[in-house]
Amino acid sequence: MTPFTSDEARVLLAGMVPPETLDDPAALADRMARASWSVLTEPGDSVAGRLIAELGAVAALEAALDDDDRHSLGSALTPVELARGRSRWRPRMADVRHPLVVARRVQTRLVVPGDPEWPDRLDDLGPHAPLALWVRGSVAALATTRPAVAIVGARAATAYGQHAAAEIAGDLAAGGVDVVSGAAFGIDAAAHRAALAVAGRSSAVLAGGVEKAYPSGHADLLSDISAHGVVLSEVPCGAAPTKWRFLQRNRLIAALADATVVVEAGWRSGSLNTAGHAAALGRPLGAVPGPITSAASAGCHRILREYDGHCITSADDVREMLGLTPEDADGPAADAVDEQDAARTRERTDDRTRILDALSTRSTRPVADIARRSGIDPDDAASLLGLLALEGRASRDGNGWRAERS
Amino acid sequence: MTPFTSDEARVLLAGMVPPETLDDPAALADRMARASWSVLTEPGDSVAGRLIAELGAVAALEAALDDDDRHSLGSALTPVELARGRSRWRPRMADVRHPLVVARRVQTRLVVPGDPEWPDRLDDLGPHAPLALWVRGSVAALATTRPAVAIVGARAATAYGQHAAAEIAGDLAAGGVDVVSGAAFGIDAAAHRAALAVAGRSSAVLAGGVEKAYPSGHADLLSDISAHGVVLSEVPCGAAPTKWRFLQRNRLIAALADATVVVEAGWRSGSLNTAGHAAALGRPLGAVPGPITSAASAGCHRILREYDGHCITSADDVREMLGLTPEDADGPAADAVDEQDAARTRERTDDRTRILDALSTRSTRPVADIARRSGIDPDDAASLLGLLALEGRASRDGNGWRAERS
Repeated sequence: MTPFTSDEARVLLAGMVPPETLDDPAALADRMARASWSVLTEPGDSVAGRLIAELGAVAALEAALDDDDRHSLGSALTPVELARGRSRWRPRMADVRHPLVVARRVQTRLVVPGDPEWPDRLDDLGPHAPLALWVRGSVAALATTRPAVAIVGARAATAYGQHAAAEIAGDLAAGGVDVVSGAAFGIDAAAHRAALAVAGRSSAVLAGGVEKAYPSGHADLLSDISAHGVVLSEVPCGAAPTKWRFLQRNRLIAALADATVVVEAGWRSGSLNTAGHAAALGRPLGAVPGPITSAASAGCHRILREYDGHCITSADDVREMLGLTPEDADGPAADAVDEQDAARTRERTDDRTRILDALSTRSTRPVADIARRSGIDPDDAASLLGLLALEGRASRDGNGWRAERS
Repeated sequence: MTPFTSDEARVLLAGMVPPETLDDPAALADRMARASWSVLTEPGDSVAGRLIAELGAVAALEAALDDDDRHSLGSALTPVELARGRSRWRPRMADVRHPLVVARRVQTRLVVPGDPEWPDRLDDLGPHAPLALWVRGSVAALATTRPAVAIVGARAATAYGQHAAAEIAGDLAAGGVDVVSGAAFGIDAAAHRAALAVAGRSSAVLAGGVEKAYPSGHADLLSDISAHGVVLSEVPCGAAPTKWRFLQRNRLIAALADATVVVEAGWRSGSLNTAGHAAALGRPLGAVPGPITSAASAGCHRILREYDGHCITSADDVREMLGLTPEDADGPAADAVDEQDAARTRERTDDRTRILDALSTRSTRPVADIARRSGIDPDDAASLLGLLALEGRASRDGNGWRAERS
């Protein structure tokens, strides 16, 4: 039993899939089946994921709609899982057409595994990977090989948090790193805006259908994002952003980025959910610290402590977490700074410090006196004084030595 | 060659050592030799440390002052090390008496290894351990078995940093944890003061002799500390607080505490030196985060990143780092909070969330509709609706269900 004929599918998917797909019956059927699955399931339905991985989207859909068990189901599902799956998927079968009509009206692309635009990063989600993506904007940006960082955080952000998000996102985006976020008020919006402000690229992942700006106050922001990057969702057009979909959306944000940075988050913030997904995926996770007196930073400190997250104070820290070399334009390279530090540390702690401690700028002191005061033997003291003289930090004066004012 | 007779030693050390020691020639000689070594060496002189560990303080002093190599030096020092040691120690021999006179005048105790008051924690320093301690105050507090935490930081502290130091130190001290610090302006002073304010115990470790308040503005603070704890130094009375001695003093602060917490520190702050000593000793190290825009927190963020320090936001975090159980008085125990969190997380992410997402408070919906909206099979949806009704979060109304306003 195939619910849609090729002709129907061609009409429903026109403009939403690559044109050559419309003339390839197998490719067309696969896309139509995935579009259907996207409507039939809630995000993260791993039973559907396993069935599709086993049979392919088309045969899986047939198995879902058919009561007959003649389908070779392999070992993917138990009979009970299949029966329960059927009873939750089938009631939505009547809902498949409408989202496609809406999607075309708002120029949405349907992207499925195997498409050149499909983001490889999602494969790490295994059976929890989305079955299809609904995408507005520059769809080619999806399959980017550029590094991508998720920058997320509290809606109730402070001015400090928004400043930090903007500084870090802007710096990263200017250096060719894509900024992924959730288009929410607060941190998310600050990150998207900063990336756009430096002509960088940003992706917004929505919990509901992409045809609708959520929050509605971000309609202009979302339209700017889709002009230079993508706005995407795994749920079809018309789907409301429910709590469940927000939580599942967070897994997509984490999965679409090489690393996740939480800028501000309350103790039980949803951003900790995104952080948890990043950690579960084995992707680097960082958090921006803030005042311990600020409730808006409590979740970030929790990430530093409980998830052993990286402490992020600048875009350089993010690049280091990603294994990217810092840009030379950003000042002295990290190695040079470390070298400087090491040199200063050596200088602070070596015997020269003790000789300098024993010198006066006001009176001259004989070597024996300097040796006694510094607790360094007189021969060593004499040669160290010679070195300090070469550096212009001490000078011989009659029978003794004095410090030069620095 | 013994530089001091028993009679001389008895006069010089009267009041500074346990009274029974004055009648025990061996104990008296050991203390006199250690007092001498404390004057002859700069802190951290591991050549002297090894010589004393090998021969004992008395024989080591004889070996240092005698030109003859008949002393059995074992394998502790090479002939060159001994020769160079002699040439740096001997010029100070004439300086030994004066510090003892000053020390007695200001009621200072000389504490040496083997004394019941000697802090065991210092043994981890090996040959870098102090040779003796000069102590004012409640000397018995030194050998405490109570947990001790070093709380240190920038002199140029912000109001935020001082507030954080005071909150954490006060809470810890009230719970019976000793607060060790360096009596400097800023973070150190805030930590000491907070500990004293809750009638807790605090130790101040000075870089110069204990007879002199350093900084002089902290004369009253140091006298309060010695009234309820100790003020101590490894350098003798009269010794100036040189840069070298500050750096070595920092190793004592770290070594006298079970853990070190840096509250605020600039990028190249001396507190990083204390942190480095704690790390080198294998003791837990923590740092209090702050705004990434604050230069006074840059060193703390460095500790979190480069030393993998613990992120400290409260006294509870310090107690956790120390392996102490949080006090019940401080609110719900950590386990209970974790349990609550876990419950909330479960509740947020389970199927009930999806059923609640599918309910309306305004209109009733039939089970089939709720099942379709939530993507949950109708049987499961019906039983979940029953559970939610028991919890008062949903109610049956005619042929359908609606959500209760929460």
